[in-house]
Amino acid sequence: MSTPPRTDKLKLGAFFHPTGNHVAAWLHPQTQIDAGTNFAHYVEMAGIAERGKFDLMFLADAVATRDGNLEALSRWPQYMNFLDPLTLLAGLTAVTTHLGLVATATTSYNEPYQIARRLASFDHMTGGRVGWNVVTSANTSEAYNFGRDEHYAHGERYDRAEEFVEVVKGLWDSYDDGAFVRDRETGRYFKPEALHFLRHQGEHFKVRGPLHIERSPQGHPVIAQASASAVGTELAGRIAEIVFTPLHSLAQGQQIYQQLKDLAVKNGRTPDDIKIMPGLNAIVGRTEAEAQEKHAALQALIHPDVGRELLQNALRGMDLSPYRDDEPFPDEVVAGLIAQDRRRYEHMLAGKPTVREIYQKFAGARGQRTLIGSPTQVADDIEYWFANRAVDGFLIQPADAPGGLDDFVTLVVPELQRRGLFRTEYEGRTLRENLGLRRPPSRYA
Amino acid sequence: MSTPPRTDKLKLGAFFHPTGNHVAAWLHPQTQIDAGTNFAHYVEMAGIAERGKFDLMFLADAVATRDGNLEALSRWPQYMNFLDPLTLLAGLTAVTTHLGLVATATTSYNEPYQIARRLASFDHMTGGRVGWNVVTSANTSEAYNFGRDEHYAHGERYDRAEEFVEVVKGLWDSYDDGAFVRDRETGRYFKPEALHFLRHQGEHFKVRGPLHIERSPQGHPVIAQASASAVGTELAGRIAEIVFTPLHSLAQGQQIYQQLKDLAVKNGRTPDDIKIMPGLNAIVGRTEAEAQEKHAALQALIHPDVGRELLQNALRGMDLSPYRDDEPFPDEVVAGLIAQDRRRYEHMLAGKPTVREIYQKFAGARGQRTLIGSPTQVADDIEYWFANRAVDGFLIQPADAPGGLDDFVTLVVPELQRRGLFRTEYEGRTLRENLGLRRPPSRYA
Repeated sequence: MSTPPRTDKLKLGAFFHPTGNHVAAWLHPQTQIDAGTNFAHYVEMAGIAERGKFDLMFLADAVATRDGNLEALSRWPQYMNFLDPLTLLAGLTAVTTHLGLVATATTSYNEPYQIARRLASFDHMTGGRVGWNVVTSANTSEAYNFGRDEHYAHGERYDRAEEFVEVVKGLWDSYDDGAFVRDRETGRYFKPEALHFLRHQGEHFKVRGPLHIERSPQGHPVIAQASASAVGTELAGRIAEIVFTPLHSLAQGQQIYQQLKDLAVKNGRTPDDIKIMPGLNAIVGRTEAEAQEKHAALQALIHPDVGRELLQNALRGMDLSPYRDDEPFPDEVVAGLIAQDRRRYEHMLAGKPTVREIYQKFAGARGQRTLIGSPTQVADDIEYWFANRAVDGFLIQPADAPGGLDDFVTLVVPELQRRGLFRTEYEGRTLRENLGLRRPPSRYA
Repeated sequence: MSTPPRTDKLKLGAFFHPTGNHVAAWLHPQTQIDAGTNFAHYVEMAGIAERGKFDLMFLADAVATRDGNLEALSRWPQYMNFLDPLTLLAGLTAVTTHLGLVATATTSYNEPYQIARRLASFDHMTGGRVGWNVVTSANTSEAYNFGRDEHYAHGERYDRAEEFVEVVKGLWDSYDDGAFVRDRETGRYFKPEALHFLRHQGEHFKVRGPLHIERSPQGHPVIAQASASAVGTELAGRIAEIVFTPLHSLAQGQQIYQQLKDLAVKNGRTPDDIKIMPGLNAIVGRTEAEAQEKHAALQALIHPDVGRELLQNALRGMDLSPYRDDEPFPDEVVAGLIAQDRRRYEHMLAGKPTVREIYQKFAGARGQRTLIGSPTQVADDIEYWFANRAVDGFLIQPADAPGGLDDFVTLVVPELQRRGLFRTEYEGRTLRENLGLRRPPSRYA
């Protein structure tokens, strides 16, 4: 069956790991070594993304340090020194004009009223450029910071997340659009009849409302989601407007793409109401050789402790200590994998790799797809996935920062624009306008 | 007893009510009518405050709309449309360089880990210009937004607040200063031995830690507090570095000033560790007559519903509806006041005022001291309170915004500088440096 050509444009986001997505990025002489707490670095990154006409920049999150062996933890900065995403992104309000700013905030260890309020505030401040990546917290180390001895069970986490989002959306509709007449003649600041009490009483939350904020420029900040689990995918079909779920192959991508669009329709939405933008680790050089060199330089910097820590965690705590770096990756480990993991990692196991080769391959981008090539090669791949409806766009994860993002913007974006795949000017001022998402009406409208 | 002359400088903060502190400010043709949600307005206000070399700007907060009659509520915008202070102030990071940014956040309906994190993030972003005004939530309408049917009892609120602050400070010390060596040679990002687990287990909170943020430029963001109750004053003596408690007379000011300094010493601190900066409603004109005209113009705009709502609330729900606007304020209402309120309001009751005169007098600045005059008169008053050790500075509450703040900065600040009372250049880059507060060492140092 041939697919009709697409008429919409590709969407692009920038995923901001402080020093870059590559696990050894901070060791590379050209990365911003103190990126985690360096505000000027984020200003620079946002400027590059906006120069590249990106739809958005995105920050992931956790509400704890990583847990584990301190020696290994101290060799890789992720989540060991990480600013609060919403606070950090709010700081970029005045230095950006069109870039969407999407923050992760957990539904497990927050109050819906506080999150509704922070996001609505931010949407006002930016004139409608805000998104919220809805997550559930999965690590015990996070539970320990919020009075709990263990994290919520998977199902309960997602139930709570869905109710949380329901409450937040309800609070965002507390005032009707146009409620604030600010009429000095009549002395009326807002129309009393335009204020609604939510009176939510559910399994996890009881919230009367109203939220004390005017309906924001986007009506609702954009909802993003990234879970790859079955429960998470169902939830995305109901609530997500952007999906960041990792995709590993075109076929898998097409299948999930169609599944999510179908789920949206099943839930009374349209296929255009949900945009599929998986992460893409793109390492681009002026030539393929240059890109490969960049990648190799980063790979060579991976410390064995870090590589093994990451792989073991991904393999659900399987002990790799009996195996030496240079022996073939053991069959008994592969045999011990649960089916889901075997599918996920099988593309790395071809050709009898050694233990070191596997952990290096895995650690660099934590098992996610890495695309290494010239501007034409990278653009070809992006076009192929986009044209074949496996994606609506990508969340670009630069391996090193700020250089990797600058490479993409300087080398790949013009090529995508030349092919007519990507905008040359922003379509609108809000994130919704640029992503092609409708502004949701109020539940009371 | 004569007081030795002061050698320290006056401190100044700017209190940002969106359209101004006066209850009818939004009705005045020169105020920013949509101030509540207008980010550009806050950028302008911060710019004025920084031009005036203010130590800080400050935002109060509530986590609900006001409760009451919707008709009356709709005539006065306070807390009906109010952005989250920390998010809003974070937005000013890139457009300010020296101004301290002090946000209110409640200890009643937040998690200590989240607040510790947001404030530490913000302190990194601003290079150390952050303060936190610690409050407890007192309104039932706030409780309703967080799953509760009533607010915490007064004592419990303060117990919780104190434990909350203890946890937050502990989390801020999670890493020792200098923990992040970021050594590419040894591959060590931080020193493992410089990371501390808090392991707090108290009556209200259980938090393991560590906070996943490097110790911030100020070590701890500055702690402010504003409670006037006996319990609140005791707490201020233990934890507050700035006290915003309203003061009504020089004698009362001197008494509370000395009490707070003594309490600080009793708690192992020094008198310099706590700065007394009460709110000051300053309405300044080029002449006294001009200032009086400004004030009268605002007073004339007070709607009777609003005036009566505010006064009744302040009088703990006493019903004023039997009394007409133009009859003398009834003796039986005065007799019914609790002692604390009678002291607080007696300065307004001299000379047999009418009901309207009382609610107008009260409503304008909600019973707080209002200073109306020429630049010289206002500077005289400020100098008098400062020289006589009733204050270390003031939190200027402009009646109208942005004009009222601009008036103060343009007319009064140069006069204070001429007298050598106020800085002409910032002493340092952090809020602590400008306020003359020491940087707290880590509890593990």
